[in-house]
Amino acid sequence: MPPCGAEPRARSVGLLAGLYHEKLTSKPFVNLVDELTAMNLDDDATVNVREIKREQDRALKIPQKIVVELSEAQSLSHEAWVEARKTSDFGRFSPWLKNILELKNKVADLIGYEGSKYNVFLEEFEPNTRVEDIQPILSELRERLKPLVENILTIETPKPELLTAAFPVTGQEAFGREVLADLGFNSEAGRLDVSVHPFCSSLAPTDVRLTTRYSANQMSESLFGIIHECGHGLYEQGLPADAVGTPLCQAVSLGIHESQSRLWENMIGRSREFWEYYLPKLKNYFPEQLRGVELEYFYSAINHVEASPIRVEADEVTYNLHILLRFELEQRLVEGSLDVDQLPEYWNETMEDYLGIHPGNHAIGVLQDIHWSSGLIGYFPTYTLGNLYAAQLFNCARETIPGLMGKIRNGEFGILLTWLRENIHGRGRRLCATELIEEVTGSPLSTDSLMGYLEEKYNHLYSL
Amino acid sequence: MPPCGAEPRARSVGLLAGLYHEKLTSKPFVNLVDELTAMNLDDDATVNVREIKREQDRALKIPQKIVVELSEAQSLSHEAWVEARKTSDFGRFSPWLKNILELKNKVADLIGYEGSKYNVFLEEFEPNTRVEDIQPILSELRERLKPLVENILTIETPKPELLTAAFPVTGQEAFGREVLADLGFNSEAGRLDVSVHPFCSSLAPTDVRLTTRYSANQMSESLFGIIHECGHGLYEQGLPADAVGTPLCQAVSLGIHESQSRLWENMIGRSREFWEYYLPKLKNYFPEQLRGVELEYFYSAINHVEASPIRVEADEVTYNLHILLRFELEQRLVEGSLDVDQLPEYWNETMEDYLGIHPGNHAIGVLQDIHWSSGLIGYFPTYTLGNLYAAQLFNCARETIPGLMGKIRNGEFGILLTWLRENIHGRGRRLCATELIEEVTGSPLSTDSLMGYLEEKYNHLYSL
Repeated sequence: MPPCGAEPRARSVGLLAGLYHEKLTSKPFVNLVDELTAMNLDDDATVNVREIKREQDRALKIPQKIVVELSEAQSLSHEAWVEARKTSDFGRFSPWLKNILELKNKVADLIGYEGSKYNVFLEEFEPNTRVEDIQPILSELRERLKPLVENILTIETPKPELLTAAFPVTGQEAFGREVLADLGFNSEAGRLDVSVHPFCSSLAPTDVRLTTRYSANQMSESLFGIIHECGHGLYEQGLPADAVGTPLCQAVSLGIHESQSRLWENMIGRSREFWEYYLPKLKNYFPEQLRGVELEYFYSAINHVEASPIRVEADEVTYNLHILLRFELEQRLVEGSLDVDQLPEYWNETMEDYLGIHPGNHAIGVLQDIHWSSGLIGYFPTYTLGNLYAAQLFNCARETIPGLMGKIRNGEFGILLTWLRENIHGRGRRLCATELIEEVTGSPLSTDSLMGYLEEKYNHLYSL
Repeated sequence: MPPCGAEPRARSVGLLAGLYHEKLTSKPFVNLVDELTAMNLDDDATVNVREIKREQDRALKIPQKIVVELSEAQSLSHEAWVEARKTSDFGRFSPWLKNILELKNKVADLIGYEGSKYNVFLEEFEPNTRVEDIQPILSELRERLKPLVENILTIETPKPELLTAAFPVTGQEAFGREVLADLGFNSEAGRLDVSVHPFCSSLAPTDVRLTTRYSANQMSESLFGIIHECGHGLYEQGLPADAVGTPLCQAVSLGIHESQSRLWENMIGRSREFWEYYLPKLKNYFPEQLRGVELEYFYSAINHVEASPIRVEADEVTYNLHILLRFELEQRLVEGSLDVDQLPEYWNETMEDYLGIHPGNHAIGVLQDIHWSSGLIGYFPTYTLGNLYAAQLFNCARETIPGLMGKIRNGEFGILLTWLRENIHGRGRRLCATELIEEVTGSPLSTDSLMGYLEEKYNHLYSL
């Protein structure tokens, strides 16, 4: 979109959102949903009515006035954040964050909640998940991750040169497209394009848009970015096509969505088996850059662990500590045990505690993420839930599919995709996240799969 | 869009069209427009009410049932046309065309008309223009064009090699973007992309999308295509921004739109002065291909006249005869003096008469255009009206702006753009096409400007 197109697009989106809200909360439609809720419907219809009612109930409780107020506050707050980050000046952003929190608190009081007020916000992204249930798991994860990270970081390893070597963009793109097709992304029903911030956006299961960004000095960003978005895209393409246009054909939650991108990006895309198959192919695209590069070196390079202040650059071991820090802080902000003005101090202290580093300035510290400025509170934990779900699903897939990693070694991904289609994608929104994970894997969510996966992989890589 | 995205997009567009139609024809809105029509409003509000009422009146007369029937017939007819053209088999398309004409006749009867039934269809694309008024002008144009074309075609000139030489696409694109920026297209408020069929599509004056297609063996297609779409784009970017979202901020008619693309593409982009400025620049991009190519040779090559059976490949001299042929035939189809089954015969006979050629088959004859299969009847004459308007405006601009062609020779286009902004673009839909042309140029529409322009240019080029 050209820069000046932002305003008319915002106007169109606003108009459509308004029409949607009007329809959703109109008396006749509310009555219809109430009648349907009382009826004995078939399973799929029950799911659709349940999901529409959930959304409707929420929408009915928030007056249009607050929706508009919040939306305006978010726009202004976002602008303030952009400026604050540029100058690394938290004081420029803090009044706006306070304003957002105040409005969010109003929303929470209007909607009502049991237990923590944070549940109102979590519910938006991870329906039916309560902070009281995930808190113990996430705390346990933190306590198990900290010693692993500490052990790895005591071993001083320089950043592998491979990661910053020059890889012409045309080769990166051609290789990325080859991988995308191999993994099973249907290019008749989707596209890959370039954007500043990579995303996956679905217009329908038959029109799924992925983007990535290429940097000539950073092959791994575009490559793992494409695999990550491909995981999101495979989920969207696999949603039940006969239910298109209804909630049944929507993703379960952000966490389940993230589990699909992370499973493909990390458990498959950063595995040794994956690169047994692909390294020779990658060498065809970049014979000079990869001359003499052996599998073991390549494998360790793409799994290099480093304490970085920046979340989006973090490896899969330290990543969840970045998230847990944000989760804890935003929970305390919502529950009132932390003031916005104390945020930078607590941020830096916790960073020191978790990763042993101190961000040089707020731009790469407390101001680095867009989320809070856009009113996205309760969003962060879905990243770590995604990693936990991914590991538990991957564990289950390996137990269920004989010789799975052997298939990966031969570039055969169809069997895993079929398993995910049957167990996750094709079921749409029938179950909520925790139900789905428990039903598919036979166990409730725990930290064991993720920690087992990380410990096995990194104990070997770092000879711990 | 990925191929499978067509269906969900059609569904979304259909839904929005339905919502729009519902709102437009709703009782309260109809009453409001009636009340406003009776009131004494300021000039701009009067224009908006008048234009909304025009659309509303038409919409109210056509039952939703016929709209759906026509829309389905057009989809199926379009598919049949694609197949028929592949096999050059008119018989496969003719039942569908008959069906379309029948439905169109129903629509015409429902809407009602004075004079020719064709006026109902012309009105859709060229509001307030009656076939009785343009018929004498278009017939005169035909009679004046035929001898000019005949004279040119008696001089046998081989197709210049330059037109089919190899020009790498990257250079074509870079040069095209340079020209686009020079002509005044604002890239903050628009984009240029690639598509199979070039178009200009405006989401708002601040978000105007252009497309082109590049062929490595055909530089002129992309280059003049970009200038053509740029002309459309400059019009859209110049519409009155303070009226965005209302009819006032819309183009006057297809004919006026085409006048803007044709003025820039032909009168400017195919002028000697334009290439005095740009040929040295083009040589920087293609030093080998253009070694030793002199201005006069280049100028005559890009203005080469040829009797081709294909409209979209036609030069500016023969182009209008292609259009006039279609205009006459569709008028007779609508008025009932020609049967669909007679169409191929009359097509070929008229081609023989106008251009002295006989299309080898129906695929490059009567089946070449998408328009009729998509229900676009009354659309063709707007191309020739566009050329007539363009020439009359260009004539006026040359008389009003001292040394205009000298400015073009120096690559200074701003003065012409400003003139078009003031006289055409910025006025939005205040006047209808014929009023606008007469007010700006001081004379009613005539064939004199176009014929004068063509005769002067081509008498010189072909030493007639």
